[in-house]
Amino acid sequence: MPEYKLSFIADQLGLTLKGKDADITGLNTLENAGEHELSFFSNPKYMHFLETTKAAAVIVSPEHADKVKCALISNMPYRDFGRALAMFARKEGDFAGISQQAAVHPEARLGSGVTVYPFAYIGARAVIGDNCSIFPGVYIGEDCRIGNGCVIYPNAVLMSAVEIGNNCVIHAGVVLGAEGFGFTRVNESIQKIPQAGFVRLGDRVEIGANSAVDRGALGPTSVGDDTKLDNLVQIGHNVVIGAQNLIVAQVGIAGSTRVGNFTTIAGQVGISGHLKIGSNVMLGPQAGLTSDVPDNFNGGGHPLLEKMTYMRCMTLAPKLPALHKTVKKLEKEIEELKNSLAASKE
Amino acid sequence: MPEYKLSFIADQLGLTLKGKDADITGLNTLENAGEHELSFFSNPKYMHFLETTKAAAVIVSPEHADKVKCALISNMPYRDFGRALAMFARKEGDFAGISQQAAVHPEARLGSGVTVYPFAYIGARAVIGDNCSIFPGVYIGEDCRIGNGCVIYPNAVLMSAVEIGNNCVIHAGVVLGAEGFGFTRVNESIQKIPQAGFVRLGDRVEIGANSAVDRGALGPTSVGDDTKLDNLVQIGHNVVIGAQNLIVAQVGIAGSTRVGNFTTIAGQVGISGHLKIGSNVMLGPQAGLTSDVPDNFNGGGHPLLEKMTYMRCMTLAPKLPALHKTVKKLEKEIEELKNSLAASKE
Amino acid sequence: MPEYKLSFIADQLGLTLKGKDADITGLNTLENAGEHELSFFSNPKYMHFLETTKAAAVIVSPEHADKVKCALISNMPYRDFGRALAMFARKEGDFAGISQQAAVHPEARLGSGVTVYPFAYIGARAVIGDNCSIFPGVYIGEDCRIGNGCVIYPNAVLMSAVEIGNNCVIHAGVVLGAEGFGFTRVNESIQKIPQAGFVRLGDRVEIGANSAVDRGALGPTSVGDDTKLDNLVQIGHNVVIGAQNLIVAQVGIAGSTRVGNFTTIAGQVGISGHLKIGSNVMLGPQAGLTSDVPDNFNGGGHPLLEKMTYMRCMTLAPKLPALHKTVKKLEKEIEELKNSLAASKE
Repeated sequence: MPEYKLSFIADQLGLTLKGKDADITGLNTLENAGEHELSFFSNPKYMHFLETTKAAAVIVSPEHADKVKCALISNMPYRDFGRALAMFARKEGDFAGISQQAAVHPEARLGSGVTVYPFAYIGARAVIGDNCSIFPGVYIGEDCRIGNGCVIYPNAVLMSAVEIGNNCVIHAGVVLGAEGFGFTRVNESIQKIPQAGFVRLGDRVEIGANSAVDRGALGPTSVGDDTKLDNLVQIGHNVVIGAQNLIVAQVGIAGSTRVGNFTTIAGQVGISGHLKIGSNVMLGPQAGLTSDVPDNFNGGGHPLLEKMTYMRCMTLAPKLPALHKTVKKLEKEIEELKNSLAASKE
Repeated sequence: MPEYKLSFIADQLGLTLKGKDADITGLNTLENAGEHELSFFSNPKYMHFLETTKAAAVIVSPEHADKVKCALISNMPYRDFGRALAMFARKEGDFAGISQQAAVHPEARLGSGVTVYPFAYIGARAVIGDNCSIFPGVYIGEDCRIGNGCVIYPNAVLMSAVEIGNNCVIHAGVVLGAEGFGFTRVNESIQKIPQAGFVRLGDRVEIGANSAVDRGALGPTSVGDDTKLDNLVQIGHNVVIGAQNLIVAQVGIAGSTRVGNFTTIAGQVGISGHLKIGSNVMLGPQAGLTSDVPDNFNGGGHPLLEKMTYMRCMTLAPKLPALHKTVKKLEKEIEELKNSLAASKE
Repeated sequence: MPEYKLSFIADQLGLTLKGKDADITGLNTLENAGEHELSFFSNPKYMHFLETTKAAAVIVSPEHADKVKCALISNMPYRDFGRALAMFARKEGDFAGISQQAAVHPEARLGSGVTVYPFAYIGARAVIGDNCSIFPGVYIGEDCRIGNGCVIYPNAVLMSAVEIGNNCVIHAGVVLGAEGFGFTRVNESIQKIPQAGFVRLGDRVEIGANSAVDRGALGPTSVGDDTKLDNLVQIGHNVVIGAQNLIVAQVGIAGSTRVGNFTTIAGQVGISGHLKIGSNVMLGPQAGLTSDVPDNFNGGGHPLLEKMTYMRCMTLAPKLPALHKTVKKLEKEIEELKNSLAASKE
């Protein structure tokens, strides 16, 4: 890893240094940082470490600058932690050039500066942009089109005709463009509906390890610019996902559903097919969606509830047994009241 | 893609053409079809596109034939859309023969017309039927037996002794025959139970991308004829799944559970071990099963509820806070009534 | 498979043989065992098979020894079934040595007795201990450190700097050390937080097929000694999992959460980030955790409930519609009582 002066880092990131300059060898958490490491503070949960950290300096927001002996003052400490970290990041992978142990179809077209590791397979008419890295065990089917600056990590699979924009990252074990789950029951048998579409990813899309994005039955399954999928996510055929979305691990989105922009979908959420999920939506973990969701919705649960109702229901759920008891008690009391009233009338 | 006369397609599929003949270059949705494309109508949600579609013709049921200018009349439009699509489908993969870059054990036995891509590994005594395609990065362990006409897509893994019938499709990244999760806690340690069984798939089984079917602890984990698994599905050791089932993405079925025939299991359903799920069952998304399910059951939820109760509970769930309020109000009113009644008796 | 005398097996496992000696060719379930097979009885669900089994002998606890004609008496029948099975287990994989078709970086360091299959890739400075098996399609990134006696099954991926202890098993399709889901929304865009950490597994850890363990953003994501993960499990960045845990299929644990020791997490459980889950905890299937869980907790549900409350809620859930009806009825009755009381006072 490289080593930088703290003042140089402050300069590069446009932050104010409050405290003594120092040599920085890397970044670390408040809890674990050593005296030549830079740290950051953004999650209030870890506030108590501000006093005890050994970090050379801490990236903090202005209101916490006084709590540390040396601060890099930032309006967005987590973002600037990321930017600082990028200065120290090392590149994954140690190979360059086109391996003799790879299988590249003579009709494939590779841009300049492309790396193809051993055991990668690139099919006929595939087009790969400049400066892409194709790791070992990657399969790129015929007629795929990949933009510039993409990284396809080991054992990822792109079935035929997948289209990827620029600067995308496809993590290990991802499968793009497998046939969608197109079957229909006909009397006592099951008939397969051929899946003739493809997958299209925008620019700067990331797809997490072992996730799957199925090809459309007709036309594309698409994921818009800057949208990031976590690991083990399932995207069905002809789903259309807009830009700038964050989709957390183990989410499943069934066929033909549309998702807007700037939406965040937490882990293990399941979304049924043919729905419309709006923009700026927030969906809590394990939510189950069976109907459309408007823009700016924030909620969770299965059934999906607006956040306030959802939180209230979560609080009340453990009280269900008590509620049943109360209602039973009330039934008895009313019976007694009735009898008592009847008696008093006699 | 090939091009066909509309009348030829009608002929091939045994459908009635109502309207003018035309050259058809492919199929598309009502919304997106161009004037040389064939479309179909089966989901009422898209009814409004019937009037505006530019499709050359639409596959429709008899009662909707008048709503389009040119119709292929069918009693099962979605099925026949699939059959038409199959006429236009292109084959995945561009390789033929046995690659010199593959590793085929000398004691493996390959049928006629088998394709083995580069970087596929075929172990000792594996038997592969006629006309199978083994894509790059596929691992076929020793003693596997694969029927005729199977396609094993890139990077799928068949551990030793997996048995597959005829005309199966194993999608990319699938793992068949990994050791089941066989562990037992012994005092303060965990002991592994060796997994000595295998996996057996019937004919025309499909396993979706990145799904896993574990080998039995003893004997087979099995999936019956025509059953289709979607992506990222987990099937535990010694599960026995019958024929003609549809199992949607991210479903998990724990060890030794049995599933009948003609059953549909929606996405993200979890089924505990050692259960018996009947035939003709329908399970809604994210259902959680902890006890047996009889034939013809239709429902959802965790706990699993019969459909009508389930739907009712889904409707009532958001009213839980109101219900608590009401009960509190009733408690107060009854208290007042009691006091009032006591007072009136004095 | 080998063949052993029943008396020899009893001897090896330190069990008492009650009945006639016999030749044993393998193990099987009570239901399916043939007359030369050994079986076991531990799940009361299968009690009725004790009378009908054809097994040569059955491993049973002392109190059931009289129920079979030939018994191997054990205090832990399931554990000893596992130990017996291990005597018959065959080794997976048929290759030995370092394949010429593999790609091993000249700066990688391999211990003695290491097997490297064709199409495995081992990066610069990777260190692999004695007697490890690296199956086809495995990717081992630069600077990885793997202990002795590890098995890495086909197409598993270890990104750079992954550390693995001794005697670990990494199943097919696993991805260790992919970048965590580190993104932050900045105004209208998404910024990536580089993931500079790594993954560290203890000794005897198993990771199930197609599971993913992300590298830390800083420092390690770690899994302690003897902890076993099932298939399709997702472990986020900087999660710290202790020793002796069992984590069942399709569980997801979000970033920076800590799990103690001896904890069991059932299938499809989801755990939010930055939580602390104790030791000796039992979590039921599909539970959803959004807050800390103390040691010795046993429960389930989303929200997470203590077991007795959870069971009670599961029983009451289907009665929700009836509860609403009752409350409506009570409201009406109280209204009538009020009126009636008012009338009686006039």
